Parts: sequence; structure tokens; C-alpha cells
Amino acid sequence: MCQLLGMNCNTPTDIGFSFTGFRQRGGGTDHHEDGFGIAFFERGETGKIGLRQFHDNQPSHLSPVADLINQYPIKAMNVIAHIRRATIGEKNNLSNIHPFVREVWGEQWAFAHNGQMTDSFIRRTERLHDNGNAEHYSPVGTTDSELAFCYLLNRLKATFKSRPSDEALFAFLTAQCRYLSANGLFNCLISNGNWQLAYAGSLLFYLTRKAPFGEAHLSDGEMSVNFGDVTTSKDKVTILVTIPLTTNEKWQQIAVDECVVFQDGDVVFKDTPSKKTYLSIEDGIALARSVGASV
Amino acid sequence: MCQLLGMNCNTPTDIGFSFTGFRQRGGGTDHHEDGFGIAFFERGETGKIGLRQFHDNQPSHLSPVADLINQYPIKAMNVIAHIRRATIGEKNNLSNIHPFVREVWGEQWAFAHNGQMTDSFIRRTERLHDNGNAEHYSPVGTTDSELAFCYLLNRLKATFKSRPSDEALFAFLTAQCRYLSANGLFNCLISNGNWQLAYAGSLLFYLTRKAPFGEAHLSDGEMSVNFGDVTTSKDKVTILVTIPLTTNEKWQQIAVDECVVFQDGDVVFKDTPSKKTYLSIEDGIALARSVGASV
Repeated sequence: MCQLLGMNCNTPTDIGFSFTGFRQRGGGTDHHEDGFGIAFFERGETGKIGLRQFHDNQPSHLSPVADLINQYPIKAMNVIAHIRRATIGEKNNLSNIHPFVREVWGEQWAFAHNGQMTDSFIRRTERLHDNGNAEHYSPVGTTDSELAFCYLLNRLKATFKSRPSDEALFAFLTAQCRYLSANGLFNCLISNGNWQLAYAGSLLFYLTRKAPFGEAHLSDGEMSVNFGDVTTSKDKVTILVTIPLTTNEKWQQIAVDECVVFQDGDVVFKDTPSKKTYLSIEDGIALARSVGASV
Repeated sequence: MCQLLGMNCNTPTDIGFSFTGFRQRGGGTDHHEDGFGIAFFERGETGKIGLRQFHDNQPSHLSPVADLINQYPIKAMNVIAHIRRATIGEKNNLSNIHPFVREVWGEQWAFAHNGQMTDSFIRRTERLHDNGNAEHYSPVGTTDSELAFCYLLNRLKATFKSRPSDEALFAFLTAQCRYLSANGLFNCLISNGNWQLAYAGSLLFYLTRKAPFGEAHLSDGEMSVNFGDVTTSKDKVTILVTIPLTTNEKWQQIAVDECVVFQDGDVVFKDTPSKKTYLSIEDGIALARSVGASV
């Protein structure tokens, strides 16, 4: 339910420009006004990744917490943000606001979801929890999204006793996302601070900005940036979003049921269904509405 | 290492006054300037508790994130805050900034520590992790504090397959805190949003404000509040802190190795050693220095 924004780059980058447009959709240019959250993975002096999160139950276009994010630029390697339009779970309750975070093998994993899991998935997965068969992670709030995240992580921990290689991990996560997508409408972003995984169940776009940098104009506000003025020639910054944020750049659509993983701004893993399907934005919105979700 | 601040109340309360004094100790009136963190447990409309956290690697007396907390009053049922003076773990790295949070049986648990675990505890506990004998929780950062928190939670999950009663839980946590206190200098605050547990290894004070409310003067700044103006007669608010925050109120000291749990502003559990010891503030600071921690 709602909209996703992600960033993955090869140098600490301020997401301010993209966030300025995105937050307008939380009650300004669009109706996702039931709170927002953003997780920043920042690299310390020794290279160690730290996470901090900001959540607010105010609409992002008005939120003082969102104002802070624009006024106090945070340079991060990975960001996941989410604006919420409540369909399942108490509106405005902080425990229902994405991104959700869990520690996995000593890493913080952040997750945000856009879509809607089926009633039968929810019932089945809740039963696993009630029967004590989901021992590692349990949802704190009442969303289908956090339930799906916990399902995925419980499967992960049940399958691997210790952290597998990235290659094995990405293949496993793709398979789990395919399962979740077969049991609902499931677009998601997941990051451990080093990589960011994007799975498209319906709508998800990305754009990699690198030299030569040009100018970008926001679709949701009167703002332009010439990235040539604020970057070096080595910078590579990938932005992921449910619906493109700028009007004059070429966004790449992720195919339905395609899984793409980014690291240092580059695609490092991709698993594409043999038959590629792309939904138009209108069809993606209609699909979300038909299952009771929102885009 | 560092200082702790906690709040537990029977009605959603803004911690602004206490936080105003406390944040001054992060680089203003004291030297705890290696970042700060604060976790707010807020009650939603249906009574469901949600958590949000703010972390910054700037000194709290100057931090724009701390400014936001003063300017955007958050009414919470439980709060845990921590200002850091780095002794173990990279200075200023976000992954080393308390409070640390883990999900336990579908509840968010926040933890902050003041003290210093012994080298032998650290080595022994790291070995447990390396040998795969600490399967549920692992530290993300490099502090002894997060290691102690993970140790405690791994023991909890290894002992109870599902959530025990609060009574059994508090007795178990007291025993674990005693063990940790025997293996280092260990003052901590833990909250699941409903209750807040305080364990004193050296210095920890609390104060319960209730009707008839009076005026309070901060020790770390020129600020006074008449709580009678901002409360109702039913309000009950307990503040916990390493060193008292006000000059004109009677703070209650927690004895060395005493464990006290608060709910709705009241003491609901207490386990006191048969021989009560209280350190003077000077002796507590000297003890912290002698083990390489800071107060």
C-alpha cells in the first residue's frame, strides 16, 4: 500500500532532491497521508555501516520530521523510504509504518512494501506464528507487509544456519519474493546497507545517475537540480521509486516479477522471468485498487 | 558508557523538560559528545504501542535532531535516551549509538547501557557467537553494550520458547542483569513500551512526579517548569537518570545491584540485594573511570 523510494550509491549521497518530490505525494500531490518512514544506511569512518530511521504518523508533506530530513542533509549509501496509505492495520499507528527493520546475522535489514497480501496468505502465516513455527521473527504491528517481511526472514533463518554468500542469498530472496508475489500484490525494497534488492510485483522504476550529469526536474514540485554542480565524475547514484519522480529523465521499468539487486549504484544481480511483462502506470494503479491496495 | 535517561508514565507525556537538561550533558555541561539516541514508545488510538527512534552522531547539545525533539513535542508512555562518550567501538558510528532495539516475541525492546563489560565477558560472548551458539541475536556494531544486550536476549529466547508471564520475565531479567553486573559495570534501562526496567550497577536515580505537582529547576540550564500548569491530577510520571536532573526535587537512588520495574509510573517489581549499598555520585564517577567507562 503506498509508495516506495530507494537509493543505492557508490558514494555517500543526500537524497534531499528525490525526497522533496516524494514527500509531496504524502498528502500534497497524492493521498498517501497516513504517515511515512525513512531508513538511512550511513558509512562511518572505518567503513562500518550504521542505520538510523525516522518515522512519523503525520502526512509527509507537512511533517516536521520530513522538514528535518530536508534541512539536515544526511549522506547515505542506501536509503529506503515509504509513504503510507492505510488499508490493513490501524491508520497512523507508528507500529504500522514502514520501513520495518530486523537484525539478521548481525546486519540491520530494512524492508518496505507496496501492495496487498491475500487473506489466505495472512491467515496461513498467522497460524504458523500461533503454532510456534515462526520462531525468529514476529510482527509488532498489524500490517500484512510486516507479516510478509517476517515470513521471508523466518524462511531465511530456517534455511541457512549462517549467512550464505551474496549469490545464494539473492537467489533465495528472489524465490521467496516470487512466492510472496504469488500470494498477493508484492512490490518491495530490502537493504542491508550494502546492497538493495528491488522486487516488482506491479510498478517499480529506477534510474542511475552518473557522469555526464544533467539537470533534473521534479514532477511533484517546482524544483530542478543540475547534478553536475553537486557531484564528482565518479559518482553513481541509483534511485528506485514506484512512479518516476522527474519529468525529463529516462526511467527504467522493472518487469513484473523481476528481481534486481544494486550495489554501489550498479546492478549486481538480476533475475527476470522468461516472459517479460510491463504494466502501464494506469494499469498498475488499477491493479492495486482492484486488490484493495493503493498506489 | 555515558549517561541514561528514561521515562515511564500513566499518560502520554512530553519528555521535553528533562531532555532539555539531559542533552546539555552531551558536549555542553558535560563531555558525552559522541552522539545520542532516543526511543519513544507511543500509544496509538487503539492502545497499540508503536516505537520510533532518533539517533545522531553529533553531540546532543548541538544536534539538529535533538533540536527537533525539543521543537516537535512527542507524547510517549516510555522513553529511553542515551548520550555517548565512546570508550569501546568506533566513535560516532551510528551502529554504536544506543538505544539498541530488537524485536522479541512481537514486541520492540529498547536497551541502553552505562558502564563497561570486562574483556573476559566480551571474549567469552564473542566466542559463543562465533561458534553459532547465540542463534537469535547478534550485535551490529562493536560496543560491549550491544553485545551484553544480545547476550541477555539470546539467554531469554533459549530459556523460554514463548513469552512468559511478566512476573517470570522480571525475575529472569533480574538474574541476567546480576550476571552481567558481575561481569562488568552494568547500569541499564530496558523497555518493551509497557514497562521499563532499571538496573543499577553503580549510579541510577528516579523521581515520580504526581499530584500535587510543584516546580522543578534544571541543574544543567536556566529552566524551570511548574508541572501543575501542564498536568492533570491523575498524571504519574517517573523519570530515571544516571545523575539527577533537577536541583530542588528529591530523587530516589536505586541501590547497587537493585532491579526496579515501572509501569504506569509506578514500581511494579523490585528485587533488592539483602545488603543495600548506595554509591555517592563522586564514588560512582570514580568507579566508572577506574574500569575505563565514563559517567
